[in-house]
Amino acid sequence: MADPTKSPPLTRSSVIDAHALIKKYIHLTPVLTNAFLNDLASNPQSAEALADTPWAGQKPANPKIRLWFKCENFQKVGAFKARGAFHALTRLMAEEGWEENGGRERGVVTHSSGNHAQALSLAAKTMGLPAHIVMPTISTPSKIVATKGYGANVIFSGSTSVEREAVVAEVVNDTGARLVPPYDHPDIMLGQGTLGIELQQQVGDMIKAQGGKNGKGLDAIITPCGGGGMLSGTALSCEGTGILVFGAEPEFEGADDCKRGLKTGTRIESVKTLTIADGLRTPVGAYPWTVIHDRKLVKAVYSVTEEQIVKALRLVLERVKIVVEPSSVVGLATALFNEEFRGMVGREAGESGWDLGVVVSGGNVSVEALGRLLEAKEEGKEKVGS
Amino acid sequence: MADPTKSPPLTRSSVIDAHALIKKYIHLTPVLTNAFLNDLASNPQSAEALADTPWAGQKPANPKIRLWFKCENFQKVGAFKARGAFHALTRLMAEEGWEENGGRERGVVTHSSGNHAQALSLAAKTMGLPAHIVMPTISTPSKIVATKGYGANVIFSGSTSVEREAVVAEVVNDTGARLVPPYDHPDIMLGQGTLGIELQQQVGDMIKAQGGKNGKGLDAIITPCGGGGMLSGTALSCEGTGILVFGAEPEFEGADDCKRGLKTGTRIESVKTLTIADGLRTPVGAYPWTVIHDRKLVKAVYSVTEEQIVKALRLVLERVKIVVEPSSVVGLATALFNEEFRGMVGREAGESGWDLGVVVSGGNVSVEALGRLLEAKEEGKEKVGS
Repeated sequence: MADPTKSPPLTRSSVIDAHALIKKYIHLTPVLTNAFLNDLASNPQSAEALADTPWAGQKPANPKIRLWFKCENFQKVGAFKARGAFHALTRLMAEEGWEENGGRERGVVTHSSGNHAQALSLAAKTMGLPAHIVMPTISTPSKIVATKGYGANVIFSGSTSVEREAVVAEVVNDTGARLVPPYDHPDIMLGQGTLGIELQQQVGDMIKAQGGKNGKGLDAIITPCGGGGMLSGTALSCEGTGILVFGAEPEFEGADDCKRGLKTGTRIESVKTLTIADGLRTPVGAYPWTVIHDRKLVKAVYSVTEEQIVKALRLVLERVKIVVEPSSVVGLATALFNEEFRGMVGREAGESGWDLGVVVSGGNVSVEALGRLLEAKEEGKEKVGS
Repeated sequence: MADPTKSPPLTRSSVIDAHALIKKYIHLTPVLTNAFLNDLASNPQSAEALADTPWAGQKPANPKIRLWFKCENFQKVGAFKARGAFHALTRLMAEEGWEENGGRERGVVTHSSGNHAQALSLAAKTMGLPAHIVMPTISTPSKIVATKGYGANVIFSGSTSVEREAVVAEVVNDTGARLVPPYDHPDIMLGQGTLGIELQQQVGDMIKAQGGKNGKGLDAIITPCGGGGMLSGTALSCEGTGILVFGAEPEFEGADDCKRGLKTGTRIESVKTLTIADGLRTPVGAYPWTVIHDRKLVKAVYSVTEEQIVKALRLVLERVKIVVEPSSVVGLATALFNEEFRGMVGREAGESGWDLGVVVSGGNVSVEALGRLLEAKEEGKEKVGS
């Protein structure tokens, strides 16, 4: 990868520069709104929904929230990861001596079984470089096919991180390929942050077109948090704008490592969880942590249960009418179901409420998998909407 | 309903007027593109796909098609029907003496168990009128709940058209409500046609932004055809522009009534089909027929099999990442799988290919229903994409 110490400074202005570099390669993804979900977010949860929670018997929060969905499920390769991959590659190729030292022939390498694998493969194919992707032998066949479909050279490894890194080291040794990590690098963070720049502009324009709010745009943005590349990039994109940035995580089996790390002030470096939000099983990386924690650019991180994720998933599918993977809906689940978040919005926003940008991170999931998730996880089979 | 003889003339300019009337009530729905589906449409079908068809053993067509999806699944109430309902109501309310004669108190009535019921309910609620919706007792509970959710007065009837019309007559008699039919009325057709005006503008802008084609926009549009309100309205929206308009139908159990009627020159007035494209089970109405057949504003109508609909459905869900009902994908199924259509495009479009607008009509379907459809109908469980 490009030497991180030579990356642009982690500022809003660098995110804007990154956007200028990659915008011809990526989609300007649409922003959607939904009257039904605005209503749901702007009414108190039922006493029933709060039973068996620490908020049982208390008066539920009653914030006013207008939701603006940034639909990165429509991004190239079906996820925001295309942004970071194109930016990292563009920066790598601009490195002094890269071409002369055979960079074009050597190409790039990463280990990933998810969206980053496809994103890097597409970016490399677009630039005309080889991409070597190390994937565990146990990866789902459809993901292997999809990655190969972008022209990548797929190399198999065992599934532990030690095994995968050993294979990556071998590839680097054999081919001279440069490593492009999925999130823990300034160039990746700046690339992911470009969605924040677009979202600010789009919502500002949409609110203006509605004739509202004296030109004021978003009040806040909430994004999912796995490795923290997108959360930290979005936070950078908002620095100095007055827009608050929040993270959302699954809480299942300790997947809420960022929230817990912020509480103690120490980054949690290892997580072992099988949350259905499979894009969010990784702990926050060191570089993202400097933005999220050290520089305090993220106001707070909240977590949601698996059941809340499934409820939000059904609402997005049946009401917003978009296909999304479970990781995509933790932001919405927080806005609808997390009483701590909702209470905070009620206090901070007051009568006028908040315009909240909600990042929908990706849509790489099969219909069968969605069907199984909704069937298996919905307690008591309640129909949320139809 | 408003007296059809007093409706505006069926011209492009009337569609533009309709758009000006309703645009504050409806969503300007986005237009999406998809590189994977463009590739699929622009490559010949496999010999395997053509086995057991009249094209078996022949050289498959090889047109060049760029697809532009007009996403009415994101429209209010989840379907294009909101356009016609708002237009019909706006026109009704502008009728001389309507207010004085108690029109506001009397409200409107229709019989529908589908998207028109919800569309009219929403339009009436928005305008502050009562809406009476006659639905068969056997309607799915979720549709009854949804229609009531828009504030409508739901009245039950038997499921034959004679039984339903008897109940409507009773409602008219009791309340003085005015009938707003689902498709067979000029005001409805002009309302649905507004999507064509938007689509032309949007694709023109998008092609211009890509710097392409010397400012030329769409070459053609294909829409689903049930009662023909949308197909005829879209045809009107294109009159004089040079943009060709095509219809698409399911062929199962004679659902291809418009195609068959065009062949003999006589409108088919009754159809009994259980095609999975349940929004397209009705025969073409008399008013739409005057545009589609008599004035020849629709170039041709094509039909697709249930299996082709399911294949296209999976592709839209997993590649375009939007939730759609089966009726929505007959246009795409035609573009991808109908050799007659594809051969025609190959001949007409030549090397430069066509920019084809594909209307995605609605997204009112549960995830469970989608899962069952894909499971039950996909022959041999082949995976189309993932």
